[in-house]
Amino acid sequence: MTAVNGLPRQLLAEGLGTALLLAVVIGSGIMAERLAGGNMAIALLANTLATVGGLYILIEVLGPVSGAHFNPAVSLAMAWRGELPGSLVAPYIGVQLLGAMLGAWLAHAMFDMSILQFSTRLRSGTGQWIAEAVATAGLLLVILRAPPGRVAAMVACYIGAAYWFTASTSFANPAAAFGRMFSDSFAGIAPSSVPGFVLAELAGAALGLGLHKALGHRQPAA
Amino acid sequence: MTAVNGLPRQLLAEGLGTALLLAVVIGSGIMAERLAGGNMAIALLANTLATVGGLYILIEVLGPVSGAHFNPAVSLAMAWRGELPGSLVAPYIGVQLLGAMLGAWLAHAMFDMSILQFSTRLRSGTGQWIAEAVATAGLLLVILRAPPGRVAAMVACYIGAAYWFTASTSFANPAAAFGRMFSDSFAGIAPSSVPGFVLAELAGAALGLGLHKALGHRQPAA
Amino acid sequence: MTAVNGLPRQLLAEGLGTALLLAVVIGSGIMAERLAGGNMAIALLANTLATVGGLYILIEVLGPVSGAHFNPAVSLAMAWRGELPGSLVAPYIGVQLLGAMLGAWLAHAMFDMSILQFSTRLRSGTGQWIAEAVATAGLLLVILRAPPGRVAAMVACYIGAAYWFTASTSFANPAAAFGRMFSDSFAGIAPSSVPGFVLAELAGAALGLGLHKALGHRQPAA
Amino acid sequence: MTAVNGLPRQLLAEGLGTALLLAVVIGSGIMAERLAGGNMAIALLANTLATVGGLYILIEVLGPVSGAHFNPAVSLAMAWRGELPGSLVAPYIGVQLLGAMLGAWLAHAMFDMSILQFSTRLRSGTGQWIAEAVATAGLLLVILRAPPGRVAAMVACYIGAAYWFTASTSFANPAAAFGRMFSDSFAGIAPSSVPGFVLAELAGAALGLGLHKALGHRQPAA
Repeated sequence: MTAVNGLPRQLLAEGLGTALLLAVVIGSGIMAERLAGGNMAIALLANTLATVGGLYILIEVLGPVSGAHFNPAVSLAMAWRGELPGSLVAPYIGVQLLGAMLGAWLAHAMFDMSILQFSTRLRSGTGQWIAEAVATAGLLLVILRAPPGRVAAMVACYIGAAYWFTASTSFANPAAAFGRMFSDSFAGIAPSSVPGFVLAELAGAALGLGLHKALGHRQPAA
Repeated sequence: MTAVNGLPRQLLAEGLGTALLLAVVIGSGIMAERLAGGNMAIALLANTLATVGGLYILIEVLGPVSGAHFNPAVSLAMAWRGELPGSLVAPYIGVQLLGAMLGAWLAHAMFDMSILQFSTRLRSGTGQWIAEAVATAGLLLVILRAPPGRVAAMVACYIGAAYWFTASTSFANPAAAFGRMFSDSFAGIAPSSVPGFVLAELAGAALGLGLHKALGHRQPAA
Repeated sequence: MTAVNGLPRQLLAEGLGTALLLAVVIGSGIMAERLAGGNMAIALLANTLATVGGLYILIEVLGPVSGAHFNPAVSLAMAWRGELPGSLVAPYIGVQLLGAMLGAWLAHAMFDMSILQFSTRLRSGTGQWIAEAVATAGLLLVILRAPPGRVAAMVACYIGAAYWFTASTSFANPAAAFGRMFSDSFAGIAPSSVPGFVLAELAGAALGLGLHKALGHRQPAA
Repeated sequence: MTAVNGLPRQLLAEGLGTALLLAVVIGSGIMAERLAGGNMAIALLANTLATVGGLYILIEVLGPVSGAHFNPAVSLAMAWRGELPGSLVAPYIGVQLLGAMLGAWLAHAMFDMSILQFSTRLRSGTGQWIAEAVATAGLLLVILRAPPGRVAAMVACYIGAAYWFTASTSFANPAAAFGRMFSDSFAGIAPSSVPGFVLAELAGAALGLGLHKALGHRQPAA
């Protein structure tokens, strides 16, 4: 497999995976809100379980091809650690953002909604930003410290918990924030709220890298 | 074990597995709708969790005997890839369809309902068909790219997510569509809606095979 | 470890495990009914998830000591297959029944209810009996055909699915039927309904053994 | 890695892990109560699933550094068994309590609530104390008898079940009781109820150690 052949496959995997992740998050949010009869806890519960299942299989299926980042904060962290060539950072982030938007549109197509739309759901404030930073820091810790073979299940379980314990329902992913902007539905976020989320996520990723270093290698310390 | 002996066991496994899968899907739908007091999100949540658990154990238990397809689209894809002898395609699909119908009837017998009935629930339209194609493409990707030993858990998790993120609640299986036709309950589908679902599923299976090829071998590409 | 020492430990494990299983099933049913505000689907969902988690850890923890049957139908099947010495069948079933009753009482003590009580919940009819037979046949198939190391998770997942797809909420266990008789709560069963359930479960166990034989060894048949 | 370097890392891991555990428990309780529209079964279901996911990943991630006790009763039991040096017991418990309080405060910060608050939720009575003793005894059994590599998943599943089958929703952890005292929300406990819970938990831990000894080594006894 040459780099010439390999590169497009990595980008296909990142783009396809991010698109499907957003289709899962947004689509299950639409289905859940339609069926939940106004009980938002039930809607978020369904949205959570669909995301956990979908994220798990997307990472297992596409991880061997591209690393299954689906997330610019993760790609930046991996590049900073030397685990992703610097020349791939921009292409990775580009296809993640493109995929996220297409995933939102795919969800709309499946649910017979207008393809092009923008969320009107404001998400901002100190609590939300702390939540996004905590959520992303935790995500980085999970990715960097998961035992071999368990990263997919652990990331999925983590995001499932973080949907509930962070006040922001844990986007923890600038591409997710970007893609959700294109959906005026349960999982959406108003475009004006996206920059705050992205900054908080990047700060959280840095915090996660710092905590990972402070905790030392994965082996028992004593 | 000779082919003479082995063949009936494979067919028994495919028929039994498809019957139990449909009994799980339809039976849990009946139970969920009866108990949910009109909240369809709670009903679908219960239906989802029962399907995930049931599908997981059926694939683990019967996979070593027959491959645990329980799905004509999967059997056709496996034959196309040379992993199922062409002479077995028709018998596999035959017992899958027979099993699906018997599974619906078993659910009715357990819930003291009329055995023979037909669904009146229309399921059609562009969104539904896109959803079925996406659902089946994803299912093929999961089956073809799951790491060894994880296919059962991954298929179950995938279907659990797809019940929510696809607008059609992800049948992703022509035998499931056929069997659900025989049940005028939560999980049913009107006979007139079945051909559209089956065509979309077959198109989705082809799309899944194509995506699998485009993503290359399972090993990291770079 | 001599048989003299080993025997009481096996019986302690079977009795403790069956007691805790019943405490989980009955206790979570009480909690769920108290909190669910009349929505029985939510109550059964909570009851299901607690049972799945509890059953999984009980089998993992006590399996290496006693086999973690917690179920006379399973002990009889294992003795019939030569995997449990005939002389242990009566002691196993004795401590299972005793443990089941004590587990119901432990649940009542935790929830500040009268310790001694009897269920008034009738559970009978052809549908219920077919359901119990199907549920127990499936349980035997899972136990006998699970891949090494996965039996605990698979039994738990199976019972979780069977709570919903069988019309009887899948007792699948004569000791569970016996113990639930002592609790006039969500999970209870009237004493007069117990014999029908037990007969159906034993018939289902026999059916499960027959299906296991018909499916042949666990290796691929072709 | 010297002890001088290793010690702070162990304490960082215990403090961080206990803080995040409490943030998960309290934060998801706040989110669940806000969204559940008064249905406490749905709120506890969401609280349970978030706790299961969060606890699983915290033990996997931090276990290799500190053992991932996050719980004074576990640290005392490990010291009693000789698996934690006696000199580390006080520091472990100190950072667990500190972390628990900080975790409650982090949850409040994320949800835009007053940081400093005290629960007014009374939790006492014989049933509650029996429940806490049972819950902690079970937790010790799971920790001491889990097969290698499964302790994180098993502790998480156990606590998920125990949230429902014990009448106290299974704190099973003096540091959790201490931290929840600082939150006047769904998961809180009035300060006056904490001593009773802690005593019951310590009694339960002793019971768990005794049951573990009575069950013998993990290998089959016969």
